[in-house]
Amino acid sequence: MRILTGLQPSGRLHVGNYFGAIKPAIDAQGEGDGYYFIADYHAMTTTHDPATLRENVRGVAIDFLACGFDPSRGVFFKQSAVPEVNELAWVLSTVCPMGLLERCHSYKDKIAKGISANHALFAYPALMAADILLYDSNIVPVGDDQKQHLEVTRDLVGKVNEQYGEGTLVMPKARIREGVAKVPGLNGEKMSKSYDNTLPIFGDEKPNKKLIMRIQTDSAAVEEPKPTENSVILALYQLFAGESEYKQMISDYENGGCGYGDFKKRLAEAYWDYFSPMRARREELIANPDEVDSVLAAGAEKAREEASKVIDRVRKAVGLI
Amino acid sequence: MRILTGLQPSGRLHVGNYFGAIKPAIDAQGEGDGYYFIADYHAMTTTHDPATLRENVRGVAIDFLACGFDPSRGVFFKQSAVPEVNELAWVLSTVCPMGLLERCHSYKDKIAKGISANHALFAYPALMAADILLYDSNIVPVGDDQKQHLEVTRDLVGKVNEQYGEGTLVMPKARIREGVAKVPGLNGEKMSKSYDNTLPIFGDEKPNKKLIMRIQTDSAAVEEPKPTENSVILALYQLFAGESEYKQMISDYENGGCGYGDFKKRLAEAYWDYFSPMRARREELIANPDEVDSVLAAGAEKAREEASKVIDRVRKAVGLI
Repeated sequence: MRILTGLQPSGRLHVGNYFGAIKPAIDAQGEGDGYYFIADYHAMTTTHDPATLRENVRGVAIDFLACGFDPSRGVFFKQSAVPEVNELAWVLSTVCPMGLLERCHSYKDKIAKGISANHALFAYPALMAADILLYDSNIVPVGDDQKQHLEVTRDLVGKVNEQYGEGTLVMPKARIREGVAKVPGLNGEKMSKSYDNTLPIFGDEKPNKKLIMRIQTDSAAVEEPKPTENSVILALYQLFAGESEYKQMISDYENGGCGYGDFKKRLAEAYWDYFSPMRARREELIANPDEVDSVLAAGAEKAREEASKVIDRVRKAVGLI
Repeated sequence: MRILTGLQPSGRLHVGNYFGAIKPAIDAQGEGDGYYFIADYHAMTTTHDPATLRENVRGVAIDFLACGFDPSRGVFFKQSAVPEVNELAWVLSTVCPMGLLERCHSYKDKIAKGISANHALFAYPALMAADILLYDSNIVPVGDDQKQHLEVTRDLVGKVNEQYGEGTLVMPKARIREGVAKVPGLNGEKMSKSYDNTLPIFGDEKPNKKLIMRIQTDSAAVEEPKPTENSVILALYQLFAGESEYKQMISDYENGGCGYGDFKKRLAEAYWDYFSPMRARREELIANPDEVDSVLAAGAEKAREEASKVIDRVRKAVGLI
């Protein structure tokens, strides 16, 4: 059972990314045959600066390893290390009705937000389908925002197999990530770069802790009980603290006698401690760029080997060879 | 000066293809550094049958060689032998406004004709731009129907070079094919597969000559003079006959005394003789499939070598490496 996970090189990882995607991916290691790629071609739909692209790709590679990804139990590579994916995307495009892409929310939403519409943004779901199908992936863990793209992928597999014969492509399944912590941003909305409410998982202590100390709270006095419902502090604290510490904070909320400043300090410390081993590992990786390079090179070799089997099969089926 | 020519594997070559594209391409050999590719990826936008695709690609390879292409003076290869073209198409897509593709006549026309709109048909001009740019082509001989695609290509070069630095891609120029014989079809309209009025350049003698004998004419009696203007017979005869024979036919038209049946017979013979050496060469090539394979293999190797320089330059410029 092959499980494919794509990682967006979209800059500094935040707590939402970590609990929503990175940690579940790492926790699931060993459950199947895991392929993990850094989606650098996709990033080019919105990042047109080469230095930023390089830095973000490097960043996510380091961060993923720092967060505990074990390269001996999975294949980790850059999307562009297997350029065959673009050829498969072309093949898929030849059976992909325009309407299928026109109906994709991701495109519509970006246009609605005023992001200028380039063809790559529009074609993105065809390339994403190729990402999945190039490795005969069986399972693709996705968030809600990617469910539709998985449906597009499954539609395209149906069309290719109908046209060129069953077994030309393997039909993948979405696995909707469940039981994944909902991570509120610093302002209470869902944590997301686009809401500008993120808490990075790495970075310097002072500015990051300051972000926590600035979380808005109500004006309850120290001695008063505090509402536990919809408390960003509590929700974040639960992610980082042990169970007993979390329970202690709840009872301190309910009983009164502790101020929000105190709660924020506890949160800041738990947050800092939580990522402390990953931070240390990250420093190690930054000091040893060769280690990262060799992980990605080994991953690329393995991924390309697998991809070449699939692309050969497809080329034969469609009549290119 | 690199000159790039694309050949459509669209089935049997007809006299219009020959005088409109094949002969000019072969006549121009040696004028520059010629690259000639069989557009098999493009053919997939409309051909979804693997056997047909294979047959058409093979057919055009044999026919182009039979028509006199000299592989020692040009690089001849299948588009899909250099799959890097798809990667470059992706890069171009990231800077290609949707509007640029939406305005392309070729797409609009196909939709208007009721050809179901798949994404590859829409994305075609981006792949065509990549075909051109992957080889740093300077000159692209095009017919009127491809002028707009060359403009799209030039637009994309401008955008890439502005974004990623001058010299990232080489700006190509269209060379509009001029002085190319206008070839009427058997019914007097432009010869074209879509008008169903073509005369194949290869094939069996009887059915092909029959096509000529069936050309519609007026009801002038044998002894009467015949109008030379808009005569399909004369227009075609001029392509195949020597000058003195052509003049003889004109005077026979003007003086009367010869019937259309006679003119058609002369046309059929001139046509048959004209392609006779090519027909012989074609039989040879069909009997020696290895010769065709080795020409295409050598071309692919050379083309891929050139392409890898360009794609490396592009990958560095955009930040993929």
